[in-house]
Amino acid sequence: METRWSNRYAQRTHTMEASIIRELLKLTTHPDIISFAGGLPAPDVFPVHEFEEACSRVLREHGEQALQYSTTEGHLPLREMIARHSVRYGINVGPENILITSGSQQALDLIGKVFINSGDNILIEHPTYLGALQAWGTYQAEYIPIPLDDQGMCVEQVAEALRAGSKFIYALPNFHNPAGVTLSLERRKKLIEIASREGVPIVEDDPYGQLRYQGDHLPPLAALDSETPSKSGYSGNVIYLSTFSKILAPGIRLGWVIAAPSVIQKLVLAKQGTDLHSSTFDQMVAYEVAKGGFLDQHIQRIRRAYGERLQVMLSALEEYFPGEIEWTEPKGGLFLWATLPKPFDTREILKIAIQERVAFVPGGAFYSDGSGWNSMRLNFSYCAPDLIVEGIRRLGNVLEHVFV
Amino acid sequence: METRWSNRYAQRTHTMEASIIRELLKLTTHPDIISFAGGLPAPDVFPVHEFEEACSRVLREHGEQALQYSTTEGHLPLREMIARHSVRYGINVGPENILITSGSQQALDLIGKVFINSGDNILIEHPTYLGALQAWGTYQAEYIPIPLDDQGMCVEQVAEALRAGSKFIYALPNFHNPAGVTLSLERRKKLIEIASREGVPIVEDDPYGQLRYQGDHLPPLAALDSETPSKSGYSGNVIYLSTFSKILAPGIRLGWVIAAPSVIQKLVLAKQGTDLHSSTFDQMVAYEVAKGGFLDQHIQRIRRAYGERLQVMLSALEEYFPGEIEWTEPKGGLFLWATLPKPFDTREILKIAIQERVAFVPGGAFYSDGSGWNSMRLNFSYCAPDLIVEGIRRLGNVLEHVFV
Repeated sequence: METRWSNRYAQRTHTMEASIIRELLKLTTHPDIISFAGGLPAPDVFPVHEFEEACSRVLREHGEQALQYSTTEGHLPLREMIARHSVRYGINVGPENILITSGSQQALDLIGKVFINSGDNILIEHPTYLGALQAWGTYQAEYIPIPLDDQGMCVEQVAEALRAGSKFIYALPNFHNPAGVTLSLERRKKLIEIASREGVPIVEDDPYGQLRYQGDHLPPLAALDSETPSKSGYSGNVIYLSTFSKILAPGIRLGWVIAAPSVIQKLVLAKQGTDLHSSTFDQMVAYEVAKGGFLDQHIQRIRRAYGERLQVMLSALEEYFPGEIEWTEPKGGLFLWATLPKPFDTREILKIAIQERVAFVPGGAFYSDGSGWNSMRLNFSYCAPDLIVEGIRRLGNVLEHVFV
Repeated sequence: METRWSNRYAQRTHTMEASIIRELLKLTTHPDIISFAGGLPAPDVFPVHEFEEACSRVLREHGEQALQYSTTEGHLPLREMIARHSVRYGINVGPENILITSGSQQALDLIGKVFINSGDNILIEHPTYLGALQAWGTYQAEYIPIPLDDQGMCVEQVAEALRAGSKFIYALPNFHNPAGVTLSLERRKKLIEIASREGVPIVEDDPYGQLRYQGDHLPPLAALDSETPSKSGYSGNVIYLSTFSKILAPGIRLGWVIAAPSVIQKLVLAKQGTDLHSSTFDQMVAYEVAKGGFLDQHIQRIRRAYGERLQVMLSALEEYFPGEIEWTEPKGGLFLWATLPKPFDTREILKIAIQERVAFVPGGAFYSDGSGWNSMRLNFSYCAPDLIVEGIRRLGNVLEHVFV
């Protein structure tokens, strides 16, 4: 009987890559394996005690509201807080520009649901965030890939690439997942200029913007775009996405979209049919934890912890990885990206690595066209420093044997 | 610039009805208006104190797990608890048959995402749950409506209707939203028989099954279906949906799907691209609140409260509503359904009612074809008994004037 439930999009999603990631994430729960595979925050930086206090306050003071249905747009004090925070970073918005989503992943899904018609081209970075490919595969998007170098997206190729027509440009300017690179200020300005000239909107995905461990903050595309003199308020060409997953906790599944009010209204209607609204309780608790300056202090703490882990991983790579391998040196975020000479396939290397009790994500999972299997993504936020050293030592050993 | 963000489905969703509901839900927040419009549980039955204790326990004992990413399928102890509960009601399943969703609304969306191709027919009850029409409009479903009478779906019309081809049958057998009627046992068996013979699966939406105030529990379609002798375990033709929204709290957005493992796997992949997983924290807290028999006791409390409100509303209708109006007498759930003589339009009546500070949902919002505007849905769970009497008195007054 169950075969009657036939899939409508059997070949459309990145099923294979999705299942690789899923199997890998399962490995991260095995205590013997040191996993650089997931994108998990370090659990030891979670503000558990502050959450407990916030839950009690929310339930004692607003219990009936916290457990009830609420508006699709999201908890107003939380949206106001996000607006104030955004203004500090040059994105001039109010709560009418903000929709709370169930993590950034839902924002990607809603954008697909509202805007992508079957066969629409999306201009993406190559590699790009796997979750976006998964979200938009459902809506049968096609992709135009633009390579990355150590300054981020090769923006000089964008104008040419847009000639094929593109629904929007998808960019991760800060501490790219998976590549670890950051889009330079010059290229940001250039990208905004091209997108504006060609009439193509931008989806800016910025989960890690606050997690910079080196160098100066660069303005988000949404801020550069709204500087265009003709605009009053935020009616920009950029849809900006961010999340509490990396700066507070991912388990509560709270992200947000910043966009022109007309775009927000479309996304709200789509979200209404998707899950009505994100958890009222989690939104109120997140606000209660974050308010009064706690979030800023907490981000400082995360920066110190992850900045140290990044340095530990870079030193360990220097010590244990064979000379044939190159890697990016991120200035923030959660990931770095290692590249092997072309003939090597990191899917095969992963099988050996797992036997040696260390894991990573084979790079091809982040490419829309099945290339990139000579690369790997390494997460440096999840494991404690001593485990990072031991894991990279194990992985280095595996690679030394492969290169013999 | 913002006009570049052009909708992909401008005419496809039930935009008009959605905006009616949205505007009405906004009215429910106005303290002067007695609203029978929403589908809100009574906030005074929320187990606020139990939530506070559960939050503290979860954060003290499993804080790092509760705030971290988790699996798409959902928190295993919660799925095991749902499985045990389902077995008690004749649905023989294990956790491998269960996916936790962000409310039942997300289950409807995921079913659409995985199974509905543009132009697919869905056999629905007429009227039906507005949220399903909203969810599936996105995937460009077409509808084959089957009328309801006081025994629920007119099942004898189903075989004939299925000749046009149908992807699945969508049924709300218990205390129908919006109509308040319950599918008789005889018709349940008949529906299962027809669906099985015609090879058409069923989506059974059962948010209120536990909230019966009169008469005996009837077996869900999923239980009748899995009684078919050829089956071992649950590999049934029915996808069963339910939710914690009406028996615990809607603010935490937790529902579940029960289906054959092969169907669950497809829905899991779709959910992964949609929001990764539902809130880990809310799932663990819900489990902690519900476990050890609390949920069963709490449901008894809700039954007493809502059962009383239903009787209060029925008595008030008898006293204050004009003789021309008919209404259903539900044996459970949250809603009853009133029908006016054909020429009357409840959209017009609503405008007057709001001036008189009482609200309801005009019935046409629940029809897929723009009919039904001579009916109205009345919620009896949200308002306290004295407000129900006053609200029905006000509405009766409005109707008396309309009928003059």
